[in-house]
Amino acid sequence: MRNDIEALARRVGDIEIKTEAYYRYAYSYDATGRRGTCLGVVFPLGLKDMASIIRESSRMEIPFFIRGAGTGFSGGAVPGGGGIVISTEKMRRIIDLDMEAGTVEVETGLVNRKLQDFLEPEGWFYPPDPASMNVSTIGGNIAENAGGPRAYKYGVTRVYLRSLTWITADGDVIESPVEGPAALLPGSEGTLGAVYSAVLSILPLPAAYMTTVVTTKTDEDAMKIASDLLSIGFCPSVMEFIDSKTMKCVSKYSRTEVFDNGGSYLFFEIDGSEDLVKAQQKILESFCRDRKLESVTAADDRERDLLWELRRSISPSLARKGITKVNEDIALPLGRLADAVTFIHRTASELGLDCYLFGHCGDGNLHVNIMTDRRRKEEMKRTDIFVEQLFSEVARMQGTLSGEHGIGITKIRYLDKIFSHAELDLQKKIKSVFDTQGLLNPGKYFSS
Amino acid sequence: MRNDIEALARRVGDIEIKTEAYYRYAYSYDATGRRGTCLGVVFPLGLKDMASIIRESSRMEIPFFIRGAGTGFSGGAVPGGGGIVISTEKMRRIIDLDMEAGTVEVETGLVNRKLQDFLEPEGWFYPPDPASMNVSTIGGNIAENAGGPRAYKYGVTRVYLRSLTWITADGDVIESPVEGPAALLPGSEGTLGAVYSAVLSILPLPAAYMTTVVTTKTDEDAMKIASDLLSIGFCPSVMEFIDSKTMKCVSKYSRTEVFDNGGSYLFFEIDGSEDLVKAQQKILESFCRDRKLESVTAADDRERDLLWELRRSISPSLARKGITKVNEDIALPLGRLADAVTFIHRTASELGLDCYLFGHCGDGNLHVNIMTDRRRKEEMKRTDIFVEQLFSEVARMQGTLSGEHGIGITKIRYLDKIFSHAELDLQKKIKSVFDTQGLLNPGKYFSS
Repeated sequence: MRNDIEALARRVGDIEIKTEAYYRYAYSYDATGRRGTCLGVVFPLGLKDMASIIRESSRMEIPFFIRGAGTGFSGGAVPGGGGIVISTEKMRRIIDLDMEAGTVEVETGLVNRKLQDFLEPEGWFYPPDPASMNVSTIGGNIAENAGGPRAYKYGVTRVYLRSLTWITADGDVIESPVEGPAALLPGSEGTLGAVYSAVLSILPLPAAYMTTVVTTKTDEDAMKIASDLLSIGFCPSVMEFIDSKTMKCVSKYSRTEVFDNGGSYLFFEIDGSEDLVKAQQKILESFCRDRKLESVTAADDRERDLLWELRRSISPSLARKGITKVNEDIALPLGRLADAVTFIHRTASELGLDCYLFGHCGDGNLHVNIMTDRRRKEEMKRTDIFVEQLFSEVARMQGTLSGEHGIGITKIRYLDKIFSHAELDLQKKIKSVFDTQGLLNPGKYFSS
Repeated sequence: MRNDIEALARRVGDIEIKTEAYYRYAYSYDATGRRGTCLGVVFPLGLKDMASIIRESSRMEIPFFIRGAGTGFSGGAVPGGGGIVISTEKMRRIIDLDMEAGTVEVETGLVNRKLQDFLEPEGWFYPPDPASMNVSTIGGNIAENAGGPRAYKYGVTRVYLRSLTWITADGDVIESPVEGPAALLPGSEGTLGAVYSAVLSILPLPAAYMTTVVTTKTDEDAMKIASDLLSIGFCPSVMEFIDSKTMKCVSKYSRTEVFDNGGSYLFFEIDGSEDLVKAQQKILESFCRDRKLESVTAADDRERDLLWELRRSISPSLARKGITKVNEDIALPLGRLADAVTFIHRTASELGLDCYLFGHCGDGNLHVNIMTDRRRKEEMKRTDIFVEQLFSEVARMQGTLSGEHGIGITKIRYLDKIFSHAELDLQKKIKSVFDTQGLLNPGKYFSS
């Protein structure tokens, strides 16, 4: 194996392959905490490098794992062993900003936040905003078809992809719109091709925002209020749900006592022109008045930032609650959420598990977190039972196993709850069309 | 061949295959006016029938062409000969309305308008609204991934597909979310599988609408005004462009003189709650005042219907202008539209062609119509040159050959302007995964 890497290194000439233990360790896990193994890590500097590494790996039949920032929640970037990790982190150029067309072309190693920071002074933004946006890359966002709070109004990554420059498993370079075969790339977790760069649609920055947190008595109330608000024509850009346990945890973490009153929470943001934001805020306020709901609205940018900080602190604050976070992100029709929440709390409590719920309830996307410890074998078994029951219920409710975190390795064994045998068979065949030798991120989505 | 059909008829038992000339003629063309040939037409009454016909056709290696209402603009439903047409027109049941989940399940032969008529009294609507909606079917809309005026705000058909029950080329039935392999079905024009039914997302009907037509001096002005309005936070549900020649033609057809002043037109609709619609209308009105633009706003439902009738009369009114309508629907980034319009008018005039432009300018989707006569060979040659030049320019501007009409047979020879050889090769391989024997709508998208 080691000899293989040495031979590969000779063939790719001046592109260095790092084989030190430090690299092999640091680049072999993701946010799930699961660790894989690899023989080396390589950092292409551009399209030529990346295509050349893939072409030579392909000739030598060495598997390769494209990696962004490794912030994924399903193991998509965890290498399965015996191959090399191709990190995109040194390919982070902004190639072209075309304000007339409303597009920006970037290398996929660019961090989402860096793109936003570049666009903002020019008066633009790129809508996908996964919670990981401060560190996760555009390439990783494409691989998982990432969403985020704003996806409720603006849609997920796929919506903003105009064209891709990508490398096939054989090392051929293709530049094309996201149609036909390339339409399968977003969300396929690097199993069908390696995306080098993308032309992304961007939008003019809204002139105004209004951010409000509404307290509700129970989780089920929150879901009902969310539907009722939508049905009277309220159209926020962000509509998030946070259950009481999660909010308690966040409040403690960020030392805020305002939201620690045992209720559940809806987090809204409205954006648009000044007038439209005001008109929308009126709808929300009069609704809260009629229903006697408590609400807090950010008075200025500083308060808005504080509210967003609370929302973004959910993941880090939960991390204190247990060594291992089993983090599922189911997606359901909006009207099913209340039933799903009841089911989840009941099942978790029956199994004696510590469960935290939050998510993008506007999209029907709920994050279900069990805080546990991998070393407590018996509790892990109960967690497995929980996940199994959760996914069966989700399939029954016509939902999907992943709203935005992908299938990776953690959900691969549940695919048959959603897809029939005939479809899984089609997936495998499609995989073999894109990747004859099975070298692209083997063992993941499309290959099981 | 005739014997094949007789043998097939025996194998499918009590499902009648119509072989009379009347059927074979009536079911072998679409709105392009191009006619194909077929050996017979069959009208399955449900999933069992449809799967059985496909299974037996597949065993006998008889090609089959799934057909909705035949209103397509690219020949997608035109049979390529030697096979049977499977019409969905007798499968038009509404299977289930689930208001709690916000979904409706329908057989794909259901006409889009019939679905809207069913949903409206219940307080819901299904957003995709192709111009053909009074006659076109949900299945045809899925096959072409249809849009419509409202797609600007609400997105195209794909966005509203929750799950599909579809039949593979071998006759196997698959029920699945629109993910993995099934994600390729919308827009694939019946070349990868036959969709029997769909669970669709629906939305609560907006409480209010406001419809306004704004007159601009030139086409280029219209495009500039459209961008400027969006950049100040105006967010209509519909934003259509109609050029002066097209509007003249519509005005004559519908005997309205209001819009026959030589200008170009923007057609806006705003929807939402009463308050929000009013706030948006204010933005539009003050913009028009500042720019000294003439505008007409519908005062009530009757006037709204009149304006929509004008918009919907575009196709029938153009039909009077020539025997043959060469109708392309390019899609471009919004900021490229003004340049594209200039290019189109100049090229058409240089080639002495009668050209009409309109479309969903919010989505960058422009309908380019050349009114001609198939029998005038020399003019058809000039039309071919026009289309060739148009598509080259569109490719250069990073646009696509079809916003919503599909590839069908009319655009198949231009696919290489958008897709590389490697990609076209992938398309063929994917086609053969779904359809080993090449029996599903052969000769169309994915098989060229």
